[in-house]
Amino acid sequence: MHRMYRPAALFPAFSAAFLLAAAAVPAADWSEQDLATAATLRDRAVAGTNAFDHVSGLVTEVGPRFAGSAGDAAAVRWALNRLGTLGFSNVRSQDVLVPRWVRGTAEVSIVAPYPQPLVAVAIGGSVGTPEEGIEAQVVTVGSLEALSALPANQVSGKIVFIDQRMERTRDASGYGAVVPNRSQGASVAANLGATALVIRSVGTSPDRVAHTGGLSYRTDAPRIPAFAISNPDADLLARQVKSGKPVRLRLRSTARELPPAWSANVIGEIPGSQSPNEVVLLGAHLDSWDVGPGAVDDGAGVAIVMEAARLIAKLDRKPARTIRVVLFANEEFGLSGGREYARLMSEEIPRHVIAFEADLGQGPVWRLQSRVGVEQLPAVAQMLQVLEPLKIEGGDNTASGGADLRPLREAGVPVLDLSLDATNYFDIHHTTNDTLAKIDPKILDQSVAAYAVAAWLASTKQGDFGRASQQTSAGSH
Amino acid sequence: MHRMYRPAALFPAFSAAFLLAAAAVPAADWSEQDLATAATLRDRAVAGTNAFDHVSGLVTEVGPRFAGSAGDAAAVRWALNRLGTLGFSNVRSQDVLVPRWVRGTAEVSIVAPYPQPLVAVAIGGSVGTPEEGIEAQVVTVGSLEALSALPANQVSGKIVFIDQRMERTRDASGYGAVVPNRSQGASVAANLGATALVIRSVGTSPDRVAHTGGLSYRTDAPRIPAFAISNPDADLLARQVKSGKPVRLRLRSTARELPPAWSANVIGEIPGSQSPNEVVLLGAHLDSWDVGPGAVDDGAGVAIVMEAARLIAKLDRKPARTIRVVLFANEEFGLSGGREYARLMSEEIPRHVIAFEADLGQGPVWRLQSRVGVEQLPAVAQMLQVLEPLKIEGGDNTASGGADLRPLREAGVPVLDLSLDATNYFDIHHTTNDTLAKIDPKILDQSVAAYAVAAWLASTKQGDFGRASQQTSAGSH
Repeated sequence: MHRMYRPAALFPAFSAAFLLAAAAVPAADWSEQDLATAATLRDRAVAGTNAFDHVSGLVTEVGPRFAGSAGDAAAVRWALNRLGTLGFSNVRSQDVLVPRWVRGTAEVSIVAPYPQPLVAVAIGGSVGTPEEGIEAQVVTVGSLEALSALPANQVSGKIVFIDQRMERTRDASGYGAVVPNRSQGASVAANLGATALVIRSVGTSPDRVAHTGGLSYRTDAPRIPAFAISNPDADLLARQVKSGKPVRLRLRSTARELPPAWSANVIGEIPGSQSPNEVVLLGAHLDSWDVGPGAVDDGAGVAIVMEAARLIAKLDRKPARTIRVVLFANEEFGLSGGREYARLMSEEIPRHVIAFEADLGQGPVWRLQSRVGVEQLPAVAQMLQVLEPLKIEGGDNTASGGADLRPLREAGVPVLDLSLDATNYFDIHHTTNDTLAKIDPKILDQSVAAYAVAAWLASTKQGDFGRASQQTSAGSH
Repeated sequence: MHRMYRPAALFPAFSAAFLLAAAAVPAADWSEQDLATAATLRDRAVAGTNAFDHVSGLVTEVGPRFAGSAGDAAAVRWALNRLGTLGFSNVRSQDVLVPRWVRGTAEVSIVAPYPQPLVAVAIGGSVGTPEEGIEAQVVTVGSLEALSALPANQVSGKIVFIDQRMERTRDASGYGAVVPNRSQGASVAANLGATALVIRSVGTSPDRVAHTGGLSYRTDAPRIPAFAISNPDADLLARQVKSGKPVRLRLRSTARELPPAWSANVIGEIPGSQSPNEVVLLGAHLDSWDVGPGAVDDGAGVAIVMEAARLIAKLDRKPARTIRVVLFANEEFGLSGGREYARLMSEEIPRHVIAFEADLGQGPVWRLQSRVGVEQLPAVAQMLQVLEPLKIEGGDNTASGGADLRPLREAGVPVLDLSLDATNYFDIHHTTNDTLAKIDPKILDQSVAAYAVAAWLASTKQGDFGRASQQTSAGSH
C-alpha cells in the first residue's frame, strides 16, 4: 500500500460503553444462526487456514510482479488459476492499462570527504541521470518543510538530502508523516534549482536495505532524479555531513519510462443465495514493487481475502449476498486497477453493500473501523462483538477502506478498515526483504478469521450499511 | 574472522571447583595492588569507554577495506593516525603483500520452472563466468558430504546447490559446521563435473542478504564459479526444487584476480616500565570484506583492543611488560598479515609472553579460555576471578587465540580466548549489513573491560605463562 495515514486520535472513537449500549438495542441485523455461523467461521480460521499456502504459491511461482512486467502477467494467470482451483464462481479478469517504469541500476556514492558506496534505490517513477551521472555538493534538510523554507541560492546546483527518520507506529501514521519526502520532495527540490534528490528511506528497517515507492512530479517543476538510501547509509551520510567538511555525492540511475502495458484486475465470487446482485467486496492488490517478491505487500492481503471467501464457500450455509474477491492491478504505481474497476462497474456501484481491503501486511487485525451510515453503527458494534475474541478493538467511523477502494468510497460505498498491525510492516514493505520468511501462518490465520467474519456478517445482514459518510476526509492519497 | 570452530564440549573444561581450588593455592602471580588496579580498570571500562568512537571513526572515514583496495590503504592511514593521536608509542606499519580479488557483479536467477532473480554474491576468490553466463539444471544436496557421495553422472554438467542451514550458536560452532560448503564446495563439485556451485549463505540472517567469505580451489580440480545466495532466496530455490519440476539457474559473475598489492599491519605500543622487551600482544584485523563497512568484523575488535590498551596507558601505574596492539592486514582473504608478522618478528617470538585477539564481533565476552603451560592454569583461574563480575565463565586450555595469531601459537606463544558472544554475529558478518547500527556501545564497553583486565594482568604477572600446549588441535583454518 502507499496511502497516507492520519492519526486515528483526531477522530472520536466509539467507546466500549457506546458499543455495549448499541449492542443492547434490539437490532434485527442478524439472526442468531448467522451470528453463530460467524463465530464458527472465526474459530475455524484461528485453528488453521490455507492462507499461507496461497501466499507461498504466489511468491514461489511468481515473485516480483511490478505493474506491466512479465511477473505481473504471470500473477494474473496465477490468480485466475488459483481462484478457479479453489472453486470460486465467475472467475474473470478486467483489462487495465498500466504505466510502465523500469528502474535499471542505481548508484549513489559519497565522493568526499570520505569516499564510500551507499545502498540506494531509484524512487519509483523517477527519471534517470545522464549517462555520466551527477556529482554535486549535498545540502541536508530535516524535513520537506525545512527544504521549502530554504532560499534557492542555498539549493541551486546541489543535491538535496532529506534526512528525516520514520517513526514506528501500529497504525501506519509514521509512514504518512514522512512519505511526502518521497512523493513530493523531487519537485520541491527542483523548483529551488537542485540537481537531484536523495532521501532517507521511508521505512523503519535498521538494515542496509533501501525502500522504494512512487513519486509524483509536478508539471511546473523540472524532473530531477530521485533516490532513497537505507537508514544505516543515511546515518553514515549524516555523520560525514557532521564532520563539517563539504560532502559530495555521485549519483547514477538508468531508470526510464516505457510505453503503457496491459495488466488486469482478477475477480472471483461466492454467489449470494438470496441477493446475488448485491455485492460485498473483499479487495487486495495483485501487483507488487519490483525489488522483492511482495509476500507481505500484498501477497498476504491476496491470501487473506481469498481464504476468507473460500472458508465461507465451504460452509453448509450460503451467504445471502455475493462475496466478490477483487485482486486489483497496479495499486503501487498509480492505482490503475481500483480506478478501472470503479469505472467499469459504475452501474453496479449502488449494489455494493460494503467493501474492505487487506493491504497493510499480514496482521494481526487489531481494530475495526467503519465508514457507514451513522444509523448503522449499532450493526458495526455487533460485528465487533464477534471479532473481540480475536483481540480486536473498536475505532471510529472514518475508515479509509484502502487505496484501491477510494473511488468506491467516494461514490458512497460503505467501507470497513480491519486494521492490520503495521508495527513491523515498514521494516520490509517496498524492499527486497518482503519475503515469505517474514510471514507467520498463525498471524495470517487471525487476519483471515477477522475478514471471514466481517464478510459473512456483511453478506447476511438484514438491510444494508447505509451509504458512506463523506464529511471527513480520510486516506488521502 | 573466517576460522573454523569446534565444539568446546569436546574438551575438558576447568570446573568451578578446580578454579576455586586453584585460586586457593598461594600464588604470587600478582601483587594485591596489581589485582586492585585490574578491578579498577574493569569498573572504569564498564562505566563507559571511547571504543564506540573508534569504530564509528573507522566506518565513517573509511568503511569497506578489503585487502589491497583503496579502502584498505585508507584504513592503514586511519589506524596510524588514530594510534598516534591516542598517544601510543612506536606507532608503525609493517608492509604486507596481499592477494587481490575484485568481485565485480554477480547475477543468479531461476529461469525455470518459475523465473525469479535471486540475491547472491560471488564467493571470495571465485573465478568469473564466461561473459554470456552459465545456464544449467540444478542438483540439490544437503551437505558437502552428500555431494561427495554423489556419482559424477548425477552432477556432470549441472549447477550444484548445497542447501544446508547454519545453526545459531554462542560459540560460533554453527559456522564451523557449514563453512566447508563455501571454502571447499567448488572443488568438490568441480571434480564431479559441475559447471558451478551455489550455496545457501553460511550465515543466520533471515533477511535477503547474501554472505560472502573466501574459498580455496584445489589444484587438482577445475576452477568453477561459486556463489552464495541469501537464506530467503535459498528457501525459494528449495521450494521450486520441491515442485518436482526441473529447476534451471542462470549465473553470471565478473569476479577476477588482479596482481598482488601492498597493505600493512599497523602497530602501536604502551611501553613496559620493567620488561619493555617482553610483549603482551592484543590483536584485531584492520581489513574487512568488500560488501560492507566492517563495523562488527572487525571494526569492533580494532576498537576493543585499541581502547583496552589506551585505558591502561591512562593509569597512574605503568604495565611492567610492553602491551602491543597489532592491527593485522588481510585476515579475511588469506591471513597475510598474521603470517608476515610472525615472519618479521621471528626473533622476538620467544619474548611474546601471551597473545589474544578480538575478532568475533562486539561481545559481550562470555568465556575465558587459555592455551598456556599447564602449570600456569592457576594464574588463568585468578584472572578469571577478576573477570567474573563481567559475567565471564571459565573454559578449557585449548584456546585458538584467533586466526591471525595461529603462527604465533604454533610457535609456542601462549594465547587466550576472551570469547565474544557470537549468537547474533552471523546475522551480519561478511554481509552488507555489517554497519555501525549493529553496535551497542555498552556491549562494546564490557568487551573492552575484559580485554583491558587480561592485558593488564598479563603485563604485570610475575613470571610468564609457560609455552602454549600443542597437544590438541584447535582453530583449524
